[in-house]
Amino acid sequence: MSSSKSKSTLALLDAPELTYNHSTANISELCTQIRGQARDIEYTSDPALCIPKSNTRHSPASSSQVPLVIFYPKSTADVSVIAKACHERYVAITSFGGGTSLGGALASTRGGVCVDFREMGRIVELHEEDLDIVVQPNVGWVELNEYLGPKGLFFPPDPAPGARIGGMIAMSCSGTNAYRYGTIKSWVASLTLVLADGTIVKTRNRPRKSSAGYDLTNLVIGSEGTLALVTEAVLKVTAVPKNLSVGIASFETLQMAVDVVSKILKSGHLLEAIELADQESVGAINHSKLTNTDFLELPTLFLKFAGSTATVEAQTQYVERLCQEHGVRSLEISSEKERIDVIWGARKCLGNALVTMKKKDSDLFLSTDAAVPTSKMARLIEESVRIVESSGRGWFCANVGHVGDGNVHTAIVCPREDKRDAEKLLSQIQRLALELDGTITGEHGVGLKLRDLLIEEVGDEGVDMIRKIKFALDSKGILNPDKVVRLGVEI
Amino acid sequence: MSSSKSKSTLALLDAPELTYNHSTANISELCTQIRGQARDIEYTSDPALCIPKSNTRHSPASSSQVPLVIFYPKSTADVSVIAKACHERYVAITSFGGGTSLGGALASTRGGVCVDFREMGRIVELHEEDLDIVVQPNVGWVELNEYLGPKGLFFPPDPAPGARIGGMIAMSCSGTNAYRYGTIKSWVASLTLVLADGTIVKTRNRPRKSSAGYDLTNLVIGSEGTLALVTEAVLKVTAVPKNLSVGIASFETLQMAVDVVSKILKSGHLLEAIELADQESVGAINHSKLTNTDFLELPTLFLKFAGSTATVEAQTQYVERLCQEHGVRSLEISSEKERIDVIWGARKCLGNALVTMKKKDSDLFLSTDAAVPTSKMARLIEESVRIVESSGRGWFCANVGHVGDGNVHTAIVCPREDKRDAEKLLSQIQRLALELDGTITGEHGVGLKLRDLLIEEVGDEGVDMIRKIKFALDSKGILNPDKVVRLGVEI
Repeated sequence: MSSSKSKSTLALLDAPELTYNHSTANISELCTQIRGQARDIEYTSDPALCIPKSNTRHSPASSSQVPLVIFYPKSTADVSVIAKACHERYVAITSFGGGTSLGGALASTRGGVCVDFREMGRIVELHEEDLDIVVQPNVGWVELNEYLGPKGLFFPPDPAPGARIGGMIAMSCSGTNAYRYGTIKSWVASLTLVLADGTIVKTRNRPRKSSAGYDLTNLVIGSEGTLALVTEAVLKVTAVPKNLSVGIASFETLQMAVDVVSKILKSGHLLEAIELADQESVGAINHSKLTNTDFLELPTLFLKFAGSTATVEAQTQYVERLCQEHGVRSLEISSEKERIDVIWGARKCLGNALVTMKKKDSDLFLSTDAAVPTSKMARLIEESVRIVESSGRGWFCANVGHVGDGNVHTAIVCPREDKRDAEKLLSQIQRLALELDGTITGEHGVGLKLRDLLIEEVGDEGVDMIRKIKFALDSKGILNPDKVVRLGVEI
Repeated sequence: MSSSKSKSTLALLDAPELTYNHSTANISELCTQIRGQARDIEYTSDPALCIPKSNTRHSPASSSQVPLVIFYPKSTADVSVIAKACHERYVAITSFGGGTSLGGALASTRGGVCVDFREMGRIVELHEEDLDIVVQPNVGWVELNEYLGPKGLFFPPDPAPGARIGGMIAMSCSGTNAYRYGTIKSWVASLTLVLADGTIVKTRNRPRKSSAGYDLTNLVIGSEGTLALVTEAVLKVTAVPKNLSVGIASFETLQMAVDVVSKILKSGHLLEAIELADQESVGAINHSKLTNTDFLELPTLFLKFAGSTATVEAQTQYVERLCQEHGVRSLEISSEKERIDVIWGARKCLGNALVTMKKKDSDLFLSTDAAVPTSKMARLIEESVRIVESSGRGWFCANVGHVGDGNVHTAIVCPREDKRDAEKLLSQIQRLALELDGTITGEHGVGLKLRDLLIEEVGDEGVDMIRKIKFALDSKGILNPDKVVRLGVEI
């Protein structure tokens, strides 16, 4: 029989007990030690700065979960010095970039220190001929595309506008471009990592593909800072899409809209983006007055086309015919800049529009991030609405989908005091996604909130395999502890 | 200071000593035990069947490296029974599918047993609406596409024709379609795994994307059977490309051809395939008489176009103009079935054509698999030729490239007695690829042969991180031992 040590997995009950030393004396000596080794590293222990580092959008951390010090490294070597010292001294490390993650991924559950990448936001080197670019983790994707645009180049992953490359990698982000271009996993050639004990690993040079050894790059992408700190990335880029057109199509039923999408996916036509908004979402856009047009409050597809003029023409003709065949109520496709801004602007403002459905400032805005096979999308949305309605609370509920890859955000607006009940409904929707052969999170990650549902997705075995890897690479559990999987029963 | 146990990496010298029990008694009891638990599993210990399982194409294993028994499981549960018993009894396991891998990935370095997936070649379930298909590991990609084709569907990864899904996953394969469609990593939605101790893990359901937990799927893809046995896969599929055209373009110099490719990549035109053959390769095609046409013996691009008729027209017009601007010597683009077969047939026969350059049957055919950034391709090829020429041996040398993603195979034909010297030259070429910011293997994997060069690619730290993961998931080193990284100093 096998001892727990020789097993390929690590159950929670077999996990070693974690010991941290966050005493004032140890943290103070840590700072002295780190500055002794790398005198350029600035740091602060100002609570006004420390407290927000642990907060996550829409879900502030508990007041006890605050980093004691923030370090501002300037280089991979600096980060290595910090990790090595924390490893020696049993100090937990969280890290911070754009702060746009959801679900508690930033929470300093054990206290400890925060590595803020503020000083590592440099574009290191563009290789225009090779279509790749070397960047530090605190470069934002919006800023990156502002730099690349004039050169005719483009980096596709498009999560929340404030997101930075480091966090995007940590959370395995995507966005509206993922259907066409793939998630961030398709756009990272290699990473420079600092492991828990300070070891520096460069996962590759700059080849566009490689089968040399385990895929350390993709192991770290989506590991939410629990396996390594990413200090540099080689990103792939591509040509800016040309001849942009956008379309908006309204249908009587969700199923009709999804049927159109399903046909497009099977047709071989590769559009730029295919997004779905249900009628409540369109209602929220109208209600928000964030656009100067009123849209038909029906299940709606937002479509983007690009390529050679001939390609765009072929695609738009195909989509027009398809929409007509599926009883579209209203369809507009336009290549005029002004209409593009209005139509795509409506899709882009959706997140903010939904927030305007709050009745009181204190109301909560909560959402899911399930992804299911295309054929199950309509059912996921319809049943999600039914689940929320059946609560009889009259909460606002709307669904937005990256329908091209089956990712749906069901949003709820509810009074703050109903948080727990609302979260229960969201869990029901996430479970429904699993029943429909999907995932609990398409692009936002597990963080603290989805750890128990992750067990329902990949089984105890899957979670225990993840925990085994976690403890192998970070035996003391110092890197962003408690995220993705539980390390101890108490947190 | 850290003990070796608390480190994030595992150096070779710190690796635990491996103990196997391949005694006749233990193996015999193993067979009895396994049959007791799963009476359907057939097995054999016939040396005539066992010996070839350890051989790799172009590199037979040493005579001592032979599995003692082959098991033929029929299900995931069967494989779990086998792994669990081998784990308990310290018996090494290799696995076998199509047998097309290179570089020694199949070698039974420690003896032990082989799991042959012969009985697990079933297409389990096609989800046409969702563009995915569930398959067992012994389904071949050629056969899979024969099944999918009539339904208008297509699975892009195209390595050696005999390759099976299990091995393709193990080796992180690609082929001529990878520039357009990505490697196999882009086409696997989830895997069912049997870990070293028999634990069964299903990495996901069927979503097209997910950020739920560590990316166990991509960790196992390319791990060459050292972390898990893959017993089922959910593969993504896409629409069969329409309106196929192919082109062949000959240039005075390699650089001119590569410049054309570089422009295509930056143009945003997404062709179906872009392949490069140097003049020696074209010479080999002519010499082989495998096609009924003689081609111009110059650096040559093979191009494939598909999409809507409008897209194909736009692409071919663009490429024609581009080739003219870059002084193309000869250019043909055709959509006629007969010409497509001739032109693409020439590209497809290249592997076999190169083998016809053997002067004697006993001559060896050796090749590299480096991949570099696009701008370095011409230099890689030109310097590779120089390296081989400077040996003064007069060996035949030719270069074939999946130029769209920077992958080049430099092939050498040499007398068998010169094997060692030839391999030294190949190592020089692989090192050159690293100097040019590339990788030692774009699609073939590390196996036994490239383990030491892997250190030059990802550093001791990278290799030691891989070794740490290996021992975490397979503490007894029973799964395909000695591949990818060394587990002990002796093998």
